[in-house]
Amino acid sequence: MSDTREQILEQIKVQGDLVRQLKAAKESKEKIDEEVARLLALKATLGGDAAPTNQKFTLKTPKGTRDYGPQQMTLRQGVLDKIVQVFKRHGGEAIDTPVFELKEVLTGKYGEDSKLIYDLKDQGGEILSMRYDLTVPLARYLAMNKISSIKRYHIAKVYRRDNPAMTKGRYREFYQCDFDIAGTYDPMLPDAECVKIVSEILDTLDIGDYVIKLNHRQLLDGMFQACGVPADSFRTICSAVDKLDKSPWADVRKEMVDEKGLDEAAADRIGEYVRLSGGAELVEQLLADEKLKAVPNAVKGLEGMKQLLKYCSIFGLDKRVSFDLSLARGLDYYTGVIYEGVLKGESATVASPAKTSQQNGEQANEPATVGSVAGGGRYDNLVGMFDPRGKAVPCVGVSIGVERIFSVLEARAAASGLKLRTSDVEVYVASAHKGLHEQRLKVLNLLWDAGVKAEHSYKLNPKLLVQLQHCEEHQIPLVVVLGDAELAQGLVKLREVTTREETNVKLEDLAAEIRRRQQSSA
Amino acid sequence: MSDTREQILEQIKVQGDLVRQLKAAKESKEKIDEEVARLLALKATLGGDAAPTNQKFTLKTPKGTRDYGPQQMTLRQGVLDKIVQVFKRHGGEAIDTPVFELKEVLTGKYGEDSKLIYDLKDQGGEILSMRYDLTVPLARYLAMNKISSIKRYHIAKVYRRDNPAMTKGRYREFYQCDFDIAGTYDPMLPDAECVKIVSEILDTLDIGDYVIKLNHRQLLDGMFQACGVPADSFRTICSAVDKLDKSPWADVRKEMVDEKGLDEAAADRIGEYVRLSGGAELVEQLLADEKLKAVPNAVKGLEGMKQLLKYCSIFGLDKRVSFDLSLARGLDYYTGVIYEGVLKGESATVASPAKTSQQNGEQANEPATVGSVAGGGRYDNLVGMFDPRGKAVPCVGVSIGVERIFSVLEARAAASGLKLRTSDVEVYVASAHKGLHEQRLKVLNLLWDAGVKAEHSYKLNPKLLVQLQHCEEHQIPLVVVLGDAELAQGLVKLREVTTREETNVKLEDLAAEIRRRQQSSA
Repeated sequence: MSDTREQILEQIKVQGDLVRQLKAAKESKEKIDEEVARLLALKATLGGDAAPTNQKFTLKTPKGTRDYGPQQMTLRQGVLDKIVQVFKRHGGEAIDTPVFELKEVLTGKYGEDSKLIYDLKDQGGEILSMRYDLTVPLARYLAMNKISSIKRYHIAKVYRRDNPAMTKGRYREFYQCDFDIAGTYDPMLPDAECVKIVSEILDTLDIGDYVIKLNHRQLLDGMFQACGVPADSFRTICSAVDKLDKSPWADVRKEMVDEKGLDEAAADRIGEYVRLSGGAELVEQLLADEKLKAVPNAVKGLEGMKQLLKYCSIFGLDKRVSFDLSLARGLDYYTGVIYEGVLKGESATVASPAKTSQQNGEQANEPATVGSVAGGGRYDNLVGMFDPRGKAVPCVGVSIGVERIFSVLEARAAASGLKLRTSDVEVYVASAHKGLHEQRLKVLNLLWDAGVKAEHSYKLNPKLLVQLQHCEEHQIPLVVVLGDAELAQGLVKLREVTTREETNVKLEDLAAEIRRRQQSSA
Repeated sequence: MSDTREQILEQIKVQGDLVRQLKAAKESKEKIDEEVARLLALKATLGGDAAPTNQKFTLKTPKGTRDYGPQQMTLRQGVLDKIVQVFKRHGGEAIDTPVFELKEVLTGKYGEDSKLIYDLKDQGGEILSMRYDLTVPLARYLAMNKISSIKRYHIAKVYRRDNPAMTKGRYREFYQCDFDIAGTYDPMLPDAECVKIVSEILDTLDIGDYVIKLNHRQLLDGMFQACGVPADSFRTICSAVDKLDKSPWADVRKEMVDEKGLDEAAADRIGEYVRLSGGAELVEQLLADEKLKAVPNAVKGLEGMKQLLKYCSIFGLDKRVSFDLSLARGLDYYTGVIYEGVLKGESATVASPAKTSQQNGEQANEPATVGSVAGGGRYDNLVGMFDPRGKAVPCVGVSIGVERIFSVLEARAAASGLKLRTSDVEVYVASAHKGLHEQRLKVLNLLWDAGVKAEHSYKLNPKLLVQLQHCEEHQIPLVVVLGDAELAQGLVKLREVTTREETNVKLEDLAAEIRRRQQSSA
């Protein structure tokens, strides 16, 4: 502790006054809790007697975060395994990067979202921030190691000080599963493969009907230009369009005109375009559009879309993709194709609307749906921003929003009432009577050394019934029951938990017999 | 590039003006840096000459951290998979907790090491710190969810602002693999199983000879009492003893006497004990020791050790464990048995001493060894510190120091010159001549949908030789070669990369034929 006891006592007094003022002013519970937590933290630094009761702060995880218990972990591991399988099917290699980066690495990459970055306290040394996504760290990794081509996947947590909506799978700490293809290649070949990967993942997870929306940043910029948006407002108008998945057009138009100073007529022209969605026929329609065909960027974007839709069609995705002019995506770094996988209707539901609106104080008419579960795009200039000579490495990639997928699957599991097995124990070693704990340890040792998953009670003399109940509760298929009579003959009882059938087995044959039964039941 | 060059130059001008205004208005450094970064990002999009100075900071990961590339990840995933297998063999269930906790959760748990905790910046809201280990989060989780028994494993990164020694596997961000048994059980039964788990893991990883040192906190306290250490100095003297694995006794004695004000005679008495190590016979010797047998804590600790050594013997660990009175372990929360797995001699070497001393500025006579690769112990009061009514949940656990294990295995892999395969691709789809990229996509789609791991060049018209070289470099076993002549008959060439043997296969039989070959070669 850097302060003296007296200084801390003074701080406690000041903080105590602040808490009293907040309570008197009827400030929000969150604000008060926070200051109370600070007060308790100060008291805790005194240690010992000054902190007589164990702890007074609310026992919780940080706002917007959660623990995963064994049930959730089992579900989650199943989902991640399936995703990795798809990534590997497409030749992905794994990498990992630190959870924090030098602050400068993140600066200027996220546009208006930069305010959501978690910074670390300056404790002497480098100034660090928590990673906000896995894309910027990848770009830093490629530039730093002068890697000009890679097909990599990365599964790790990222951090955003956003407003959480936990029932919908929106957290401040959340997993991302990213797949990116870096390298100088021919147009849309890697891009289309990323769309294919999204569809394979959503299919293998079997979470219901979905659509993959596609758009192109060059087309968006061309469209803005055609509508009369000044060049220096492209990014900010783009981030307004990005809100169309959550807000109605009227609100977005208001933001463009009132907050961002866009001409009303320009906004209305944008409004005409962003309501369009379709397939190859829409590309043709727009290629014939008088305003757009005069803008080279728009034509280039449309030609890219045409090629992408062609490749998606070869991949059998005609019914899965939708060219959607309202898709913008907020991040600054995209330069080409952008896409987003969205669950449709029923499959997106994570809770009854009534329950959610109560829990989150949201509008009652907002359905509790998760929406976007995957997103990505092309970012050709990001790596070059890190390279001392500006050497670019074109990249395209996709990020799977697994937290939202977990939310959907958890809601579904809760509704079904099914309980997942959370351990893989194959055999329980039980005592039929007192005084057998050392014998149990001998049998366990024999099983473990043979690679059998086995456990026992950590009590010296557990009741047989309690031991058998443990097996039924935890769905353990086999029990070895030890008793003096059998042990004297070098035998143990092997019991099937579901049928309650018992057989005597020679101790030296036990591991082999267990293996035999597993194979026949598998 | 999404904008025309002229548009970007215009944006650069506008952004440049903004930066100048901010500087003139003496805005915060943070705000200015951000806008400067955007300016540089804009310049970067022009590429080449217009972006002479993309970024001025050194391209690196934060101090004490590193990236894992595909080679390291392949090695690491192999190690973690083996460890998880052992955890599951003992009935472990997985949990996960957030990477940061409320600061109060960590306060007062780590004694003198608290200064190594990373804090997050106060950005309004809760005060957070990065987790320092996985044990305190487990205790918080158990108390918060009122869980009184669990056998859980947790594999995740933890954070310590320590002095890094990266060649030895000492990082500021590092993985821990923890296994803990929580619950009220009979003495030493879960404790001995944790020792067994350490030995199974070190055996399965096959990293060479090791010893698991055992000691007991109650015995240490009893010994300090018997030596005349005042009760309120037990913890601080214990943390001095903890340094004996790195420092000679003379230095530790000096710290006790000069820094911690211990009586010289008491220090010398401690010095007599801490040089002792052995097995069950040492327990008997100490139980007969005049000074120790007068101290109830010492006797209790010794009786615990006796039982633990008995169970370890049943587990076949007589040659693996060593009762060692110099083992102390720094953390405050241990209350019973403590243990540490240490690599011996050759197996601990990660680099030549000369190289290491050069790289780290360490003393030339210090060998480049990793030392401790696993550690843990019993902590019966930690959960109670979080429970509002102080309800205790006794716990014992072990943490595997996988970073050090990676260091050893990486050094060994580097010495052997062997390159691990970092992707699982089974088949490469190649074009024999120009104009076949859409045919490639069709074949790839067919293979992916059949679950085959397949890739191709993302070039429209790659040279056949380049494609075949890619397969040899990346150890891809099979190539499908497409050509108009074969395709006209509904055929493709399937080529074995090592033998260069080629067979014509019907397109509709391709996936099945590939599966058949894999099975016969497996």
